[in-house]
Amino acid sequence: MVLKYSAMKYSPVLVVQLILMVLFFIFVRYGDEKEAHVRGFEGTHVMIFVGFGFLMTFLKKYCYSALGFNWLLAALVIQWALLCQSFFTMKDNTIYITKKSLLEADIMSATVLITFGALLGVATGLQLLFIAIVETVIACLNLWLVTDVFKAADVGGSIAIHTFGAYFGLGVSMALRFRREDTTTPMNNGNPAPVVDLNGASYTSDVTAMIGSIFLWIYWPSFNSGLTNSDAEYQRAVINTYLSLAAATVTAFVMSSAVNKHPGRFDMVHIQNSTLAGGVAVGSVCNMHIGAGGAMAIGIGSGLLSVIGYRYLTPRLTKIGILDTCGVNNLHGMPGVFSGLLSVLFAGLASAQDYGTELSNVFEAVGPDGRSAGSQALYQFIALAVTIGLSLVGGFVTGLLSKMPVFGSLKDAERYDDQINWELP
Amino acid sequence: MVLKYSAMKYSPVLVVQLILMVLFFIFVRYGDEKEAHVRGFEGTHVMIFVGFGFLMTFLKKYCYSALGFNWLLAALVIQWALLCQSFFTMKDNTIYITKKSLLEADIMSATVLITFGALLGVATGLQLLFIAIVETVIACLNLWLVTDVFKAADVGGSIAIHTFGAYFGLGVSMALRFRREDTTTPMNNGNPAPVVDLNGASYTSDVTAMIGSIFLWIYWPSFNSGLTNSDAEYQRAVINTYLSLAAATVTAFVMSSAVNKHPGRFDMVHIQNSTLAGGVAVGSVCNMHIGAGGAMAIGIGSGLLSVIGYRYLTPRLTKIGILDTCGVNNLHGMPGVFSGLLSVLFAGLASAQDYGTELSNVFEAVGPDGRSAGSQALYQFIALAVTIGLSLVGGFVTGLLSKMPVFGSLKDAERYDDQINWELP
Amino acid sequence: MVLKYSAMKYSPVLVVQLILMVLFFIFVRYGDEKEAHVRGFEGTHVMIFVGFGFLMTFLKKYCYSALGFNWLLAALVIQWALLCQSFFTMKDNTIYITKKSLLEADIMSATVLITFGALLGVATGLQLLFIAIVETVIACLNLWLVTDVFKAADVGGSIAIHTFGAYFGLGVSMALRFRREDTTTPMNNGNPAPVVDLNGASYTSDVTAMIGSIFLWIYWPSFNSGLTNSDAEYQRAVINTYLSLAAATVTAFVMSSAVNKHPGRFDMVHIQNSTLAGGVAVGSVCNMHIGAGGAMAIGIGSGLLSVIGYRYLTPRLTKIGILDTCGVNNLHGMPGVFSGLLSVLFAGLASAQDYGTELSNVFEAVGPDGRSAGSQALYQFIALAVTIGLSLVGGFVTGLLSKMPVFGSLKDAERYDDQINWELP
Repeated sequence: MVLKYSAMKYSPVLVVQLILMVLFFIFVRYGDEKEAHVRGFEGTHVMIFVGFGFLMTFLKKYCYSALGFNWLLAALVIQWALLCQSFFTMKDNTIYITKKSLLEADIMSATVLITFGALLGVATGLQLLFIAIVETVIACLNLWLVTDVFKAADVGGSIAIHTFGAYFGLGVSMALRFRREDTTTPMNNGNPAPVVDLNGASYTSDVTAMIGSIFLWIYWPSFNSGLTNSDAEYQRAVINTYLSLAAATVTAFVMSSAVNKHPGRFDMVHIQNSTLAGGVAVGSVCNMHIGAGGAMAIGIGSGLLSVIGYRYLTPRLTKIGILDTCGVNNLHGMPGVFSGLLSVLFAGLASAQDYGTELSNVFEAVGPDGRSAGSQALYQFIALAVTIGLSLVGGFVTGLLSKMPVFGSLKDAERYDDQINWELP
Repeated sequence: MVLKYSAMKYSPVLVVQLILMVLFFIFVRYGDEKEAHVRGFEGTHVMIFVGFGFLMTFLKKYCYSALGFNWLLAALVIQWALLCQSFFTMKDNTIYITKKSLLEADIMSATVLITFGALLGVATGLQLLFIAIVETVIACLNLWLVTDVFKAADVGGSIAIHTFGAYFGLGVSMALRFRREDTTTPMNNGNPAPVVDLNGASYTSDVTAMIGSIFLWIYWPSFNSGLTNSDAEYQRAVINTYLSLAAATVTAFVMSSAVNKHPGRFDMVHIQNSTLAGGVAVGSVCNMHIGAGGAMAIGIGSGLLSVIGYRYLTPRLTKIGILDTCGVNNLHGMPGVFSGLLSVLFAGLASAQDYGTELSNVFEAVGPDGRSAGSQALYQFIALAVTIGLSLVGGFVTGLLSKMPVFGSLKDAERYDDQINWELP
Repeated sequence: MVLKYSAMKYSPVLVVQLILMVLFFIFVRYGDEKEAHVRGFEGTHVMIFVGFGFLMTFLKKYCYSALGFNWLLAALVIQWALLCQSFFTMKDNTIYITKKSLLEADIMSATVLITFGALLGVATGLQLLFIAIVETVIACLNLWLVTDVFKAADVGGSIAIHTFGAYFGLGVSMALRFRREDTTTPMNNGNPAPVVDLNGASYTSDVTAMIGSIFLWIYWPSFNSGLTNSDAEYQRAVINTYLSLAAATVTAFVMSSAVNKHPGRFDMVHIQNSTLAGGVAVGSVCNMHIGAGGAMAIGIGSGLLSVIGYRYLTPRLTKIGILDTCGVNNLHGMPGVFSGLLSVLFAGLASAQDYGTELSNVFEAVGPDGRSAGSQALYQFIALAVTIGLSLVGGFVTGLLSKMPVFGSLKDAERYDDQINWELP
């Protein structure tokens, strides 16, 4: 904690930045210009920096930190991910980057930002930066397992990005919970602290959070379809994501009004988040032949699941000390697992009759000389299981490491408060 | 009103969502991937969800409802419109949807959101949802008449979308006005109610409304040009819309300062809205050979018309009980009619000499074996007249139906207030 | 000052708008549809109207003016620039405009908005409009010198747009400073005025400013790459801008925390602005073979330079009376000069070996029958020097002219205050 208000506090981050620069000088070259035509980059870029950033401004006195750390973490992670995500596939010790690599780096940074959502307001800047750097490595390893080893279909990243990011975050949160006992020293001479609860929204902060939420919603079809290969696959991914999101939105509103403590009224937490669950739930299967009605069914299911999670599950997790400030388990975790299970189902149902020549676009390992549909379904399941395991364990261990004194820690009264990190007006 | 705070209040909406899903399972299939290259979808998507949503946050205590209902209505209408807009042209009982269909559904939802603008803060959620579902049917019928029956040119939808949406809204408003007499029962034991007037902006809400306004302005060229066929037509639509908007913006500022109660000062209502009138007024003719100077003249005219409308017409309509909270008559209604009349003029002036081989791109029924320019002008006029008639009558009847007790209604003191619909911080 | 609250105050602006319309009727025709495929227009459009507009809402009581004048100035300048930027290259007295022309007009308007940033809150509306109209002429002349006469490479406009806009603004500011002595007449009968300092942010205004900042950041790769010619050049520009911005962002955070008055805390001024310096600094060279590591080194350098400028240079300039409200010298000026100097370096290093057939795409005058690399480097330097000279002198003279009584002026107590220009809620 000696470093808390030191001018040198963030100097290790500059060292990391300089190391990244040197590594880029050594290993990175411009790649093939054919990939300059990749779709979905601009929209995904908006999601990462405006979408995630503003969605997390819902806390009334943590808006600067939400926007600032979102930006700082993503700016660091996109650089680091450009290296990590190519580590296993580089040739001649050279990484060739293209516009498509930038899209992939953006997508990878979403993983870290989802984890940040679970920890919003309860970790120091240095803790967040440390977690981000470690998580990127493990998430890139997991992505390589899912995509290149298991050859699982996961075009929208619901397994490798959303599920991973959410359970990594919960893993960290589990590790951090033990810390709470350190801070039971009573403040105010043992009297109950007159704590103003900053873990909540103001009227204005809920409105700015909607900027993030709606931009995420708008560009989700771009996100899910960005890495498709053919026009048909691309269009299916766009249509399915669009329909799933629309159905999830209607469902989230209805459910919010139904389960709210004051029935008949909507809760902004649900509206800002559960509306988006349709994008996650359809992610792994959006390029498959799930049908327009199927996409809507998935959206409806995810809207239900997500609102129920916010209403009944999150309070219970909080009670046992597993904090999840943004409720990423309800937006990314459970809908991500749902999407993974759907990918098992739709992989098992895939046939050359439905997909025609597109079969190997969607499932690269399936074909006359490759896997059967049933076998692909099994690999989908393995990919999901490995992701959950690796993210929970990785997150837990990373969380334990982030408790090293060098990274500092927040007292209860310092949580959800910009005061710690910012010069305020 | 018994349902006002019931957990089941919005359950009929979930039933509607489930019916939509079933209809999609039965009737909808993925369409031709050639339409995956449609232009303008992403921009239009931003306009619908961010543009309309945030523009309506100008009311100081209705921001949640503005954003929430905008989202809910649009999410429902885009699904419903995908069916309705294809009803007259489906083959073998199957609707093939493409990315272009999504763009058309987004455009159709604008109609409903314009109507919502007229009713902002004065209708219940269930009333709005009912109106949206009915309006979509009538608006799709009208669109089919305008486009397929009359074969009118209306590429930016100023007739079938803007004019229709605005006068449908005024029609509903006329029907709702009779309700006001129900609520004359004095509150507070007959003493004048200490009503805080919520029908106005705060400093912050005017700033968030500008998010919507500017995003609408930015992507209007995408909106107007989205459904063009050739590069030349597309580029003309973009240029004309860009210039008309720029000229309308300069004009709106000057006029706002001129007619304001405190001359020399700008009024945010004009700036947020009349700047956009240039996009509406050029909509029906933006792909025609109107000339760059012509586009600017249209913009100047619409800026004038719109500010004058806000300053002098809306207060008079309010006085006779026709509420129009956002002044959609000044932004969409009168500029839409203006655009329709311009389309009569420019259709009448169209010649193969100016348009060359593009003539049938812009006016599909005009040509050596088809209509004359004069005849096309007449059809443009018919399309406009039918749109105005159908929207006013349709809106009025729908408004009367929306007064059924099952949808609830708002007392005067409940207007413009998020309290009714939301859990507030 | 008699015109201050007159209904006719802005009527000359309408006259300007009408003259523009007439000029467009006479001189402007639709151009070749091949340029309908230009890249980067939509993103740049977002930067100009949302990016610049919201970035300048950081002042707590000048949000309406920031958004309003940004919009009004840009809407006027894009029309005027469409004429001015083609003045030297028009054929047969006709200007053919395309979607690419719109992009170029948007880019030119950035110049004026940068200048506006220097003057934010200290000039009247009429002063700003006058300055904008004059500046557009001089900036288009300078752009023609840089691009067509010196044939300097400046694809992202860091010389002709950023450097020019910043030093034009400082030139105006130098001219305006003499005015301060006019207002030393004490208010309040000689007692010190109980001035509330409006030259600062509120919690909310800092959050809305981040909307602008992040959108500028997101679309900067589109801005810098919009006018590239080939896919390879385009992709290089996108990658280099992306990496430079990421590195500048990390650096800006670290430096902000290091040099802040309260060390260890971030300052929103730095975060909102210095994060963007990476986009400016890489602008003139982003399509060159600078290498991914080189792009990051440039970003790191610009982040350092910009934060240091905000922390130590701006207060000194303010002390000697050169106001620069947004600190455009630190975001556009010094990083722009840095970029210009880098273009001297990389032009000097350019070889057919590195660039292959692309050499003439990037440096149009270099080649076997043209200039040598060293000669091109010299022209890059001349372009930079002429830009600095012309902008400072042009700005200073324009600033002197803007002090004519007809444009009005602001007293000290009227600065940074929407009250003067707006009907407030």
